[in-house]
Amino acid sequence: MRADQRASHSMRPVRIQCGVSPYAEGSADVSFGNTRVLVTASVEREVPDWLKARQEGWITAEYGMLPRSTHTRNRREASAGKQSGRTLEIQRFIGRALRAAIDLRSIGPVTIRLDCDVLCADGGTRTAAASGAWVALAQALEYLERERLVSGRVPIKQVAAVSVGRIGSEYLLDLAYEEDSRADFDLNLVFSEDGEIVEIQGTAERKNFRRDELAPLIDLAYSGVEVIFSAQRNALNQRA
Amino acid sequence: MRADQRASHSMRPVRIQCGVSPYAEGSADVSFGNTRVLVTASVEREVPDWLKARQEGWITAEYGMLPRSTHTRNRREASAGKQSGRTLEIQRFIGRALRAAIDLRSIGPVTIRLDCDVLCADGGTRTAAASGAWVALAQALEYLERERLVSGRVPIKQVAAVSVGRIGSEYLLDLAYEEDSRADFDLNLVFSEDGEIVEIQGTAERKNFRRDELAPLIDLAYSGVEVIFSAQRNALNQRA
Amino acid sequence: MRADQRASHSMRPVRIQCGVSPYAEGSADVSFGNTRVLVTASVEREVPDWLKARQEGWITAEYGMLPRSTHTRNRREASAGKQSGRTLEIQRFIGRALRAAIDLRSIGPVTIRLDCDVLCADGGTRTAAASGAWVALAQALEYLERERLVSGRVPIKQVAAVSVGRIGSEYLLDLAYEEDSRADFDLNLVFSEDGEIVEIQGTAERKNFRRDELAPLIDLAYSGVEVIFSAQRNALNQRA
Amino acid sequence: MRADQRASHSMRPVRIQCGVSPYAEGSADVSFGNTRVLVTASVEREVPDWLKARQEGWITAEYGMLPRSTHTRNRREASAGKQSGRTLEIQRFIGRALRAAIDLRSIGPVTIRLDCDVLCADGGTRTAAASGAWVALAQALEYLERERLVSGRVPIKQVAAVSVGRIGSEYLLDLAYEEDSRADFDLNLVFSEDGEIVEIQGTAERKNFRRDELAPLIDLAYSGVEVIFSAQRNALNQRA
Amino acid sequence: MRADQRASHSMRPVRIQCGVSPYAEGSADVSFGNTRVLVTASVEREVPDWLKARQEGWITAEYGMLPRSTHTRNRREASAGKQSGRTLEIQRFIGRALRAAIDLRSIGPVTIRLDCDVLCADGGTRTAAASGAWVALAQALEYLERERLVSGRVPIKQVAAVSVGRIGSEYLLDLAYEEDSRADFDLNLVFSEDGEIVEIQGTAERKNFRRDELAPLIDLAYSGVEVIFSAQRNALNQRA
Amino acid sequence: MRADQRASHSMRPVRIQCGVSPYAEGSADVSFGNTRVLVTASVEREVPDWLKARQEGWITAEYGMLPRSTHTRNRREASAGKQSGRTLEIQRFIGRALRAAIDLRSIGPVTIRLDCDVLCADGGTRTAAASGAWVALAQALEYLERERLVSGRVPIKQVAAVSVGRIGSEYLLDLAYEEDSRADFDLNLVFSEDGEIVEIQGTAERKNFRRDELAPLIDLAYSGVEVIFSAQRNALNQRA
Repeated sequence: MRADQRASHSMRPVRIQCGVSPYAEGSADVSFGNTRVLVTASVEREVPDWLKARQEGWITAEYGMLPRSTHTRNRREASAGKQSGRTLEIQRFIGRALRAAIDLRSIGPVTIRLDCDVLCADGGTRTAAASGAWVALAQALEYLERERLVSGRVPIKQVAAVSVGRIGSEYLLDLAYEEDSRADFDLNLVFSEDGEIVEIQGTAERKNFRRDELAPLIDLAYSGVEVIFSAQRNALNQRA
Repeated sequence: MRADQRASHSMRPVRIQCGVSPYAEGSADVSFGNTRVLVTASVEREVPDWLKARQEGWITAEYGMLPRSTHTRNRREASAGKQSGRTLEIQRFIGRALRAAIDLRSIGPVTIRLDCDVLCADGGTRTAAASGAWVALAQALEYLERERLVSGRVPIKQVAAVSVGRIGSEYLLDLAYEEDSRADFDLNLVFSEDGEIVEIQGTAERKNFRRDELAPLIDLAYSGVEVIFSAQRNALNQRA
Repeated sequence: MRADQRASHSMRPVRIQCGVSPYAEGSADVSFGNTRVLVTASVEREVPDWLKARQEGWITAEYGMLPRSTHTRNRREASAGKQSGRTLEIQRFIGRALRAAIDLRSIGPVTIRLDCDVLCADGGTRTAAASGAWVALAQALEYLERERLVSGRVPIKQVAAVSVGRIGSEYLLDLAYEEDSRADFDLNLVFSEDGEIVEIQGTAERKNFRRDELAPLIDLAYSGVEVIFSAQRNALNQRA
Repeated sequence: MRADQRASHSMRPVRIQCGVSPYAEGSADVSFGNTRVLVTASVEREVPDWLKARQEGWITAEYGMLPRSTHTRNRREASAGKQSGRTLEIQRFIGRALRAAIDLRSIGPVTIRLDCDVLCADGGTRTAAASGAWVALAQALEYLERERLVSGRVPIKQVAAVSVGRIGSEYLLDLAYEEDSRADFDLNLVFSEDGEIVEIQGTAERKNFRRDELAPLIDLAYSGVEVIFSAQRNALNQRA
Repeated sequence: MRADQRASHSMRPVRIQCGVSPYAEGSADVSFGNTRVLVTASVEREVPDWLKARQEGWITAEYGMLPRSTHTRNRREASAGKQSGRTLEIQRFIGRALRAAIDLRSIGPVTIRLDCDVLCADGGTRTAAASGAWVALAQALEYLERERLVSGRVPIKQVAAVSVGRIGSEYLLDLAYEEDSRADFDLNLVFSEDGEIVEIQGTAERKNFRRDELAPLIDLAYSGVEVIFSAQRNALNQRA
Repeated sequence: MRADQRASHSMRPVRIQCGVSPYAEGSADVSFGNTRVLVTASVEREVPDWLKARQEGWITAEYGMLPRSTHTRNRREASAGKQSGRTLEIQRFIGRALRAAIDLRSIGPVTIRLDCDVLCADGGTRTAAASGAWVALAQALEYLERERLVSGRVPIKQVAAVSVGRIGSEYLLDLAYEEDSRADFDLNLVFSEDGEIVEIQGTAERKNFRRDELAPLIDLAYSGVEVIFSAQRNALNQRA
């Protein structure tokens, strides 16, 4: 039994709500249990210099934690004057995940910037952020369509992310902070809606893992992602 | 008539909710109309070096805006590598306001750090932040009492902040963003519960103001602050 | 009696001398007692990006203290790699004050940059800086006229700044450093030549102030500003 | 056939030479084909603050590319004033890989810092760096033993890293730069000597990958790592 | 004939005035013609970490130019967030020059920090700064003696700096800005009172120089330094 | 006798090898004894903004030390977020030296950037770097000719750098680290092939030097530079 009475193969409650920012072209308030992330999508009508020659758009992410999203306060990165390696690693993870959702040629020369700000951090902030970012991205594409910045509909594949790990002999889905800090190893996985893998990041924290452990872990992760896929669709459908 | 149908002497709806952060020693989710700020209070059991010789505590504030809290996205300060002059000016304003709420000798050698993060910016973010920060501070003092980091109760005076301004011949209370950008001048005022002034900041944006205008403007501001004082008390009383 | 034998309603000796920089388009060496600030005005034939669409000019200020302008040496901000919150707050104060002196549409697309460098800091550096900056600005406008960067004369209103405060039951004009550090509260005020207020910044340092104290304090401040106005005019008139 | 005539399941020539730095406690000059990285291990007799309470050591890595290690020159990070997200991501990858090689309690309160500087970048710089860093680490442990900073021998497990990817229907081992930029996806894997996985990082660059592709890819990667394990042992054995 | 009617072997007027800062332990306002530098000496009762083991003091310099000390305004380094290479090169030059004036063991564990801020830059700022810094240093040593931070008198050798250069076939002493920018090459030299060389920095700007040119150039420089030595002594003697 | 058995007037073994970087337009691996520097020349088809009006090219240098090129590890400057004063001073020295090798008008509007990265530092890194940079520059000019970015051949003068110093009564050529740290003073000299001086930097570290010592020191330096000139030519001639 886990601290929150979950079964080992259960997700924490996944809640995603759209439209929480009155100004952004897309937004989502996503929580996996206590972990809560606010995501906005901002459309900018230009692309980075290195992309200008091609007729493509760009999707990128930024990630931040409010200083007291954590048990003990972290120094504000704006005040420290730089973003930590962890922050940069996570925002690169989110950006790659979301770029796999569309063909960048389909949006023309715009940048969609996904800001993921963690209000409460109880493990899995990167998976919650990437999963919520997909919902914000979907709204931003609707904005492009509505504003006729693209012709027709932009095809989008659903993507979502989840973590799995091992404590002792048990495989656990969607690790909370306390579990994550005790895990032998953990994996973060991004799947697309057709069940394929977009990204896998696995790290042996305390113990290495055997090659034959990957397949059951990935299946467990995929079962969790299907719950998130459903929450993402509901969030988009339940808009007024 | 104002854009939101308010009378010139009316506050926007003021909502303050406590306890929104599961980890912080105090927290408040405060909104003045669409403007919404999340405030946490963090207790640190040490003081800045220059205070170490004295037996006093310290209260300080940090302020930030989520990149898309505004109509068009602002660059993330953590990524830019520095905080803007406006950010630093506002967090100094909030810190001074809250230090006026208590006698710093009454809390012993602890620092209370008030993080004010703007989720949505529609004018008056500094006044909403300072007003919400008082609620978070009050909870942090209760924490000090509960943890016996102080002996007995820490006396606290209520403080709150509000803006007033002039458009044409009309004095307006609690300016929204669109009003603020059209105002001849505006004042931000911090009051303590006994009606005294803690801080006044007034700037002629388009027109200067006459000396005899200050008194009616300050009275108007004080009428608004009484609404906020009431919301602050309710927020603390309505905790489970 | 004050440390320098001044009456409570007296300014320190105000000295302003023009033309101390051989290269700048305007310059002033201003002192209020021991406090001494060197101001230069630099004309740049471009405006910030966000102003380019409009046919307006811009006035902005930068402020710095020489490391040993103070009793104990402060770290050089260029070496620290960033400007303090105090520095940014003061340079924003000076910039706002001077922008109130003219109609920015009257100077066309130029930026006038006012550099205020404190050679000696004995309280009131921001008020001395703003007051001296007006003299440098007036010369820079003459430069624009002389170089035919504007057609005709640019209308300018005189602006100057002064501080007032309370120690015990006494209101004091133009606080020196030692007074400032003992004051219950202090106000910095910028006036225009017609007696209107451009900026007011008041902070309760040790005690809050009553609303009915503002009027006499502002009158006291205005009496001081008239002394500065006179010194500003003399400085411009006494040029060879 | 690959550009360098390799079979799809072949490593590029792996060369590792010890002792190339006269001052460091361990060093390796490692190349995978044209990719060449210089690694040094530096022993510092202290640990980060957050580790001080525990009786443990620490292993960490820093990574950098010489500005012209690449086809077109990259800006020097020291001059830019910050390290890129890619740099930080890679040095975190190397640090995690090497911390899996030993039990940190076995080295006492010392930090071993692995500097990985890329002289020539032709793909696989992170896998070459991590593999060479193991050789430098092994020498640093011998230094600890020789200097009697530890009692007895420090147990160490061999770790090494390699990349695999897919281009079209073909799985390729140890991607060179040109292959990497054309790959549908690629994986970087760190193995320990017992065949277990320390770290897996897989990213769909152009196409997602199916779950059943992981097993053959990992087997291919492991075949490459055995070549590197052998080069690592030879490098240590061939010292004078 | 030079622009200011000087002979090729003449210094510009050298003026040095002591005691211009009311707070610093030593100060000098030094000008070589239009070039004017304010120098302060600050005594700090500690030394850099790497010196703590030895019973020695330290002398170091910082250099800065006011933004409008030059013909066209330079960006404020505090605002740019870093000091230029030129600034760092010059402050290292000044520090080395002054450390040659005393035996660092004679002042005990104190740091003397020489701040050199250029008010007006017309060539030779580094030589004026170093020459004025000696006067400020001499006063700081008297302060150490007066405060009994040292026992007895601290022996000090006089040091001063000057530039020489060649334009066409003519050797010029103490180059002004316009001369410096046209010179084939120039040398900055620091001498001690016994005629020995403390520092020589020579750079071919437009043309290289022959080895046999050094001797006459150095003799010319030394003739100028004797003028500065005299001004330094006068400045110290003429104090009230 | 010196630590490495050299005569006082002998250079350490000078080795220069071309073409060590497969991507750069020029490269050299240069060593003076244990000191070893990798230099690359990168051709960029643009010039700094301030040069755009003129039809000239630009040559500039950057310098860095690998963190463990020294006896004890130095902090990585990219991680520290800024380059030290020493680094900036040295890269300015190298840039000036190389700009003296050609007429900048002869290469048209291109920038040649010389990256000098120190793999091992045993004294004389700046002289080895500048000497090796000349070899890289010569190759870059051949590249310009080959790519027809210039018409005809670019005239180049050979330049090289060496250090000399005094320990006690003895003059030493090409100081190693241990000698440098004991020297009374040292000089770094850059010569051009016609025996003229491009740059001289001399610093009294422990003792000042007499004016009449310069001539024999410079002759000693020149004898060393002739050895380097020969190694430079050999390096270019021995290319395949």
